[in-house]
Amino acid sequence: MDDITAQTGEGRRSRGEGRGAAARRASRSGGGAGPAMPYITRKIAPYEVLDEEGLQIIERNADTILEEIGIEFRDDAEALELWRQAGADVKGQRVHFPKGLCRELLKTAPSVFTQYARNPERSVQIGGKATVFAPNYGSPFVRDLDGNRRYATLEDFRNFVKLSYMAPSVHHSGGTVCEPVDIPVNKRHLDMVYSHIKYSDKPFMGSVTAPERAEDSVAMCKILFGDDFVENNTVLVNLINANSPMVYDETMLGAAKVYARHNQACVISPFILSGAMSPVTVAGTLTQILAEVLAGASFTQLIRPGAPVLFGTFAASISMQSGAPTFGTPEPALVSYGAAQLARRLGLPFRTGGSLCASKVPDAQAAHESANTLNMTLLAGTNFVLHAAGWLEGGLAACYEKFMIDQDQLGMMQKLAQGVDLSESGQAMDAIREVGPGAHYLGCAHTQANFQTAFYRSALADNNSFEQWEVEGRKRIEDRANALCRSWLDSYEAPPLDPAIDEALLAYIAKRKDSMPDAFT
Amino acid sequence: MDDITAQTGEGRRSRGEGRGAAARRASRSGGGAGPAMPYITRKIAPYEVLDEEGLQIIERNADTILEEIGIEFRDDAEALELWRQAGADVKGQRVHFPKGLCRELLKTAPSVFTQYARNPERSVQIGGKATVFAPNYGSPFVRDLDGNRRYATLEDFRNFVKLSYMAPSVHHSGGTVCEPVDIPVNKRHLDMVYSHIKYSDKPFMGSVTAPERAEDSVAMCKILFGDDFVENNTVLVNLINANSPMVYDETMLGAAKVYARHNQACVISPFILSGAMSPVTVAGTLTQILAEVLAGASFTQLIRPGAPVLFGTFAASISMQSGAPTFGTPEPALVSYGAAQLARRLGLPFRTGGSLCASKVPDAQAAHESANTLNMTLLAGTNFVLHAAGWLEGGLAACYEKFMIDQDQLGMMQKLAQGVDLSESGQAMDAIREVGPGAHYLGCAHTQANFQTAFYRSALADNNSFEQWEVEGRKRIEDRANALCRSWLDSYEAPPLDPAIDEALLAYIAKRKDSMPDAFT
Repeated sequence: MDDITAQTGEGRRSRGEGRGAAARRASRSGGGAGPAMPYITRKIAPYEVLDEEGLQIIERNADTILEEIGIEFRDDAEALELWRQAGADVKGQRVHFPKGLCRELLKTAPSVFTQYARNPERSVQIGGKATVFAPNYGSPFVRDLDGNRRYATLEDFRNFVKLSYMAPSVHHSGGTVCEPVDIPVNKRHLDMVYSHIKYSDKPFMGSVTAPERAEDSVAMCKILFGDDFVENNTVLVNLINANSPMVYDETMLGAAKVYARHNQACVISPFILSGAMSPVTVAGTLTQILAEVLAGASFTQLIRPGAPVLFGTFAASISMQSGAPTFGTPEPALVSYGAAQLARRLGLPFRTGGSLCASKVPDAQAAHESANTLNMTLLAGTNFVLHAAGWLEGGLAACYEKFMIDQDQLGMMQKLAQGVDLSESGQAMDAIREVGPGAHYLGCAHTQANFQTAFYRSALADNNSFEQWEVEGRKRIEDRANALCRSWLDSYEAPPLDPAIDEALLAYIAKRKDSMPDAFT
Repeated sequence: MDDITAQTGEGRRSRGEGRGAAARRASRSGGGAGPAMPYITRKIAPYEVLDEEGLQIIERNADTILEEIGIEFRDDAEALELWRQAGADVKGQRVHFPKGLCRELLKTAPSVFTQYARNPERSVQIGGKATVFAPNYGSPFVRDLDGNRRYATLEDFRNFVKLSYMAPSVHHSGGTVCEPVDIPVNKRHLDMVYSHIKYSDKPFMGSVTAPERAEDSVAMCKILFGDDFVENNTVLVNLINANSPMVYDETMLGAAKVYARHNQACVISPFILSGAMSPVTVAGTLTQILAEVLAGASFTQLIRPGAPVLFGTFAASISMQSGAPTFGTPEPALVSYGAAQLARRLGLPFRTGGSLCASKVPDAQAAHESANTLNMTLLAGTNFVLHAAGWLEGGLAACYEKFMIDQDQLGMMQKLAQGVDLSESGQAMDAIREVGPGAHYLGCAHTQANFQTAFYRSALADNNSFEQWEVEGRKRIEDRANALCRSWLDSYEAPPLDPAIDEALLAYIAKRKDSMPDAFT
């Protein structure tokens, strides 16, 4: 898979040895619901909302935050000591950064890297012109196929892994696709990582809720890919949230240290609800995000120079009436567009967006909010997209029907990213000459030759006449999504997994679980 | 209102005398549902999908179509004679254009103009950095507030005029906001134009279904604005569809001639379902659109040099399985982005987009398709947007609930278009210093000073907790839209209209109706 980075020519660092045993043994293809592209290579330009002057103002202000106000690294003596050694001014838990220190440290971070999947055809490029869609992350609840909203279970978790595996426009298996609340808190990460390995062959994410759970994630990947492969390549991308404003806490620092040490990728993501965790303005929010990312991302390079790290942004606003988070509104879109520009200037891969919404049901509110977020996500030139499918209710619930609707929209974005074909066939002058004024193109040779691939085909949109739609039962899109979801889950087939690896993973999990009491909080 | 064009400095031609009597007499403000901006002045850049090479390929190919294939001007001897005199090669009804002829003729067309409203505060700029949202156009059916789909009536027409009048983010009253099917075909234009004048004070559109109906539209505007004002200023914008591929028919040419002669604006719009009326490719479709617009728009300049004309594009695809039109898919988005670029290069104001969808109900399909179209419409830098609110079912039905949902989204676009505030307050460094690591911004001075205007506030999105949403009856957004729509219509108050003008208009309509038999087809 080295050609993933080679073909873009954008990688700063070279890859390690060839791919692991599991990857070599893995099956060639797995998506049950259509042909898959491993990731999007965008042929369209990113959309930008800040000019050079605006970017410089924000960068200068972020430097001021880093130097004058500082960032707190809480309850982690090792982190503070590392910063001291690097030349920062540490006062208590507050780290003040001399101008340019973070940027200097970040020079060792790759601008493009490959995250390997056990099926090499599913490995993804992260950075450059690549966009990778990953599903919903972190929901304790699900909205199930019977319309119930209830706590999520491990069965739900497996189902969402299966659906992401089958969705041709979901490139990544994600991480906590929902919280398997029926499994003890201290053990569920083992079942989650195993489910990603067992039920999918797409790349996935590790646990970040405690350093030892991060170690377990790495250990299981070593069983799958081999020890050396993991230490020299990236097989996990991991979500490290800043505790905005301007704080990194012990838990996130602990997980970040584990992953960086093992050469695994961290997505350093300020989690921002503007008005609460950041100023109520776009420029102020961008400034704080940049300062937080500069501190957190450069920290990974203190741990291991060259470890992959992403510039992450989770941007939402709050209702200034109720304090509730709001999604799909214009201000967070401007924040994300701007953050993408700042990330490109830093030379880091960028994460934002997804299909975010506050709605409790997959209605037009959910869709408008999701579509506003998703269109921005693609046009901003985002490299890694969490929450791309299934997110409902401000992330509190993973919704099966919405997953299906979202993955259809992801397919549209995949097509949009291909841009305008200006080949001779794309120009279609022969067709225009053949048809001429007043005739139609339906039967002409060019149409016949190209119609199969000409237009994105939605499996969920109803484009029939009103009368036909009535005859078919006046179904709304969520009804069609429900039926399609059931049929996918019915027809799911697991990608083959080497039985020896499977056995070793199960043995590891059993041993680890035996070593712990059950904890539910 | 001359400052509308003066302040942008982009107008090519000077305005006529001051505004008309009715406009001067009209009330200062009318929107009942919130403060209105007369139109959007975009502070964000347009998004572009074609580079210089691509644009030149398409322009060269369009010139080839114009010269070699030609465009048909059907059943209009006057049009053909005008083209002959202008130097075109006319064979039968087919007009072949020497290279550069159309572009030369278009040099007299303004790149920016003002469409005057009877309330001068509602006059809109069309072209340049302005974006004007107008409602749905042309639906024979409505989906009413009781959930019935039925033929539209004049009462529905009036209701949509009232709703557009009240919606702060709908800048224009539109034209055939629905077809008042209960009024004879040959008379309904009189009731439509009157309804726009009577129930709104925003700018509106004239009838294009027959030359004499266009003359009636102009005559009624003369009663409203005064004869001289109408002849020297633009008070009507009118939709002239090409009969794609490469045909203009008698009806549309007849209406275009009337409006251009009276200095009123024509939106020359190829109506394209790619795969049927144009090639199945984006570049081929763009080429044909450009050729059609060049021919149609330059024709208006043959009629009256300097008459305002827009580069219009209605882009959709068809399902290659059923032939049904599809909306909100990636390919028409690419077409519209590209067409906007071509229009800017021609120096013509651009029309496309709206809130298009194929869904039969205002569900997530409707919303995704509409949002995809609308985000593109704004980012393309579109100047005049038909179908911005209320469009359902491929345009066959005007939907009250969707109108309300759409107008909320238009408000979001209006905010997005303001871009990033980089003022000192926008930078918010004082707030960041005041709050510091680990605290929150809710109560800080900067937040208190700015929260009223910081974020777009949706009146329809539910951002509450799941529990609160349950207590409030588990409402979907269309339920909330239904209630809001009823409350708007209940609280509607007509803007004052000079009784003498009202009387004169009613007398004109009565006299005209008396002169015609009822026609229902």
